[in-house]
Amino acid sequence: MPHISSHAKIGQNVRIAPTAIIHDNVIVGDGCDIQDFCILGTPTGGENAGKPLILHNNSIIRSHSILYEGSTFGENLHVAHSCVLRDGITAGSHLSVGNFSDLEGNCVIGDYCRFHSQTHIGRGCKIGNLVWIYPNVVLTNDPLPPSTLEIGVTVEDGCVICTGSVILPGAHLGKGSFVAALSRAKGAIPPVRIVAGFNGEITGTIDKLRHRASNKQHPWPNHFARYPDSAQPMIKALGEALAAELEKL
Amino acid sequence: MPHISSHAKIGQNVRIAPTAIIHDNVIVGDGCDIQDFCILGTPTGGENAGKPLILHNNSIIRSHSILYEGSTFGENLHVAHSCVLRDGITAGSHLSVGNFSDLEGNCVIGDYCRFHSQTHIGRGCKIGNLVWIYPNVVLTNDPLPPSTLEIGVTVEDGCVICTGSVILPGAHLGKGSFVAALSRAKGAIPPVRIVAGFNGEITGTIDKLRHRASNKQHPWPNHFARYPDSAQPMIKALGEALAAELEKL
Amino acid sequence: MPHISSHAKIGQNVRIAPTAIIHDNVIVGDGCDIQDFCILGTPTGGENAGKPLILHNNSIIRSHSILYEGSTFGENLHVAHSCVLRDGITAGSHLSVGNFSDLEGNCVIGDYCRFHSQTHIGRGCKIGNLVWIYPNVVLTNDPLPPSTLEIGVTVEDGCVICTGSVILPGAHLGKGSFVAALSRAKGAIPPVRIVAGFNGEITGTIDKLRHRASNKQHPWPNHFARYPDSAQPMIKALGEALAAELEKL
Repeated sequence: MPHISSHAKIGQNVRIAPTAIIHDNVIVGDGCDIQDFCILGTPTGGENAGKPLILHNNSIIRSHSILYEGSTFGENLHVAHSCVLRDGITAGSHLSVGNFSDLEGNCVIGDYCRFHSQTHIGRGCKIGNLVWIYPNVVLTNDPLPPSTLEIGVTVEDGCVICTGSVILPGAHLGKGSFVAALSRAKGAIPPVRIVAGFNGEITGTIDKLRHRASNKQHPWPNHFARYPDSAQPMIKALGEALAAELEKL
Repeated sequence: MPHISSHAKIGQNVRIAPTAIIHDNVIVGDGCDIQDFCILGTPTGGENAGKPLILHNNSIIRSHSILYEGSTFGENLHVAHSCVLRDGITAGSHLSVGNFSDLEGNCVIGDYCRFHSQTHIGRGCKIGNLVWIYPNVVLTNDPLPPSTLEIGVTVEDGCVICTGSVILPGAHLGKGSFVAALSRAKGAIPPVRIVAGFNGEITGTIDKLRHRASNKQHPWPNHFARYPDSAQPMIKALGEALAAELEKL
Repeated sequence: MPHISSHAKIGQNVRIAPTAIIHDNVIVGDGCDIQDFCILGTPTGGENAGKPLILHNNSIIRSHSILYEGSTFGENLHVAHSCVLRDGITAGSHLSVGNFSDLEGNCVIGDYCRFHSQTHIGRGCKIGNLVWIYPNVVLTNDPLPPSTLEIGVTVEDGCVICTGSVILPGAHLGKGSFVAALSRAKGAIPPVRIVAGFNGEITGTIDKLRHRASNKQHPWPNHFARYPDSAQPMIKALGEALAAELEKL
């Protein structure tokens, strides 16, 4: 029957649903909420076997989600329903992961990233701070499928990857770049560029993204700041950095 | 352990699997079937908090699916496995939702709609009657991602959205329009048009869709009527309305 | 509460998690591992109702997955988390199915196939040996959606279908063909061709796929053989067959 391993370390004021399963190799910080039919600390093979799953304070794991051993997440992690987060992930604070997302492991993720539903992050990816990934996006890693090569994607701070896009193996998205929906991005994309279409062409810079009503435009920190107060200095710095990149052009 | 809240209102002849969880704020009609590892009435925040989840008669919720409080579905709802249906949905009768679909909430859906697997319906969408949505389709809602704007998609009666397509924020698909696979639709699409490709171009009208063997052609009510008898008047009226739109051209 | 039907036939050394559910109509071979919150033998209607679900030796079904009655899989099946495998599937040995995949049933699958996460295999498809299908790929089957026609896809031995592609109804992918990411393939594709883009154009042959560092090139059996020993004769024969197809051109 569902259970909490006596070897798991559970913090203060943690809510664990009666149907959740907590394996041996798990450390849960204070104030976390582990919901029904979740599994924490699924054993894995390979290089991360036997390493703990570490959740820091105030994290929420919604129902039916599975987190393997061997990954570490910063505080205020929010995992939605029916996600799989495998081993070897090192993530900063306030990561938000949408329903049915699949984080394949062995990746590095910065602070305040938001992945929407049904995203897929291949092994070996590197993702900066304040990155937005929308539904059905896939970050790939095999440059010659099928091969034994694994060349992940790098996504720098403040990038936005829109719905249904595929980032091809080894692509490097420069700071604040924006991938349009249903596009393929490949190679090195300089900062603050818009990438669009099957061939991943650069079609402009992000200051073209302007809301007709408000006349506010990207970089998105100009008009979006629905984050906790703790994020505001980082958002402000990102906005300045992206504005400086646009100035250079 | 799994449970049925004593505050939930359960109709006659309802089957509830022993591992299903029914929260407080749930009303289930007669003859429903709630399968294993489901959760009904997940609490939510915001405007729909505390409102009930209402399922009408003869609905089936397959295993591992999650329905939040604050939504109302007409009779004969069929939710397949591992779906998430959030708060603020008002749906007509005979809605069918495929495996792994994600209905983000705050949307209106008509009668006799069929969503296939892995569909994603963003908040703020409006969907008419007899609409078909195929696997991996996403209806988006943020016109300047990330922004605080939410401009959903409108899909009128009888539309067909094929596999892997993305409907861009604020798009309005006129009655009986057809979006080809892996396409992006945007803006206002007049009735009975075919939309195809990355740029969402109108490539013709739906009477072009003709089956070589039978020589039957769209509008689809000409050749498809595998619905309950109760739907036949609505299908007939749709077929006539779409034929009239084609006549006008 | 979770249970194992007394009518199910369970082999030797099978691990069944305490939260798994095994219905009546299930035969499980030796050495299998059935993980938490899985359901085996879900009853179905139609032509496959009442037929058993047969799992052969050494199969692994990871958590939250659902396998219907009426399907037969060869030994060493590996189903990842939260999959749905419906009725009427006949699969060879060593099939691997990634997280959130949806096999809709009534299909034939050869030996040593690997489907990645979030794949969708429509009813009526035929898939050969050693086929690779990457995340978010959909094999469709309705040539005039919505219709009552069902014309599945045929995928011959050694094909590779990259991330996010849609294979249109009735397509026939010849031996060793390769579909690029986010492409649509349709019609008859001769062997060893590369298909790319929205219009599914043939853009070359697979010997163009060359890794810059190692200078190894497709056909993939030239450089990839991370399979069990039992597969090596089949891989060698495939490599020779594909090389012979390339010679002919």
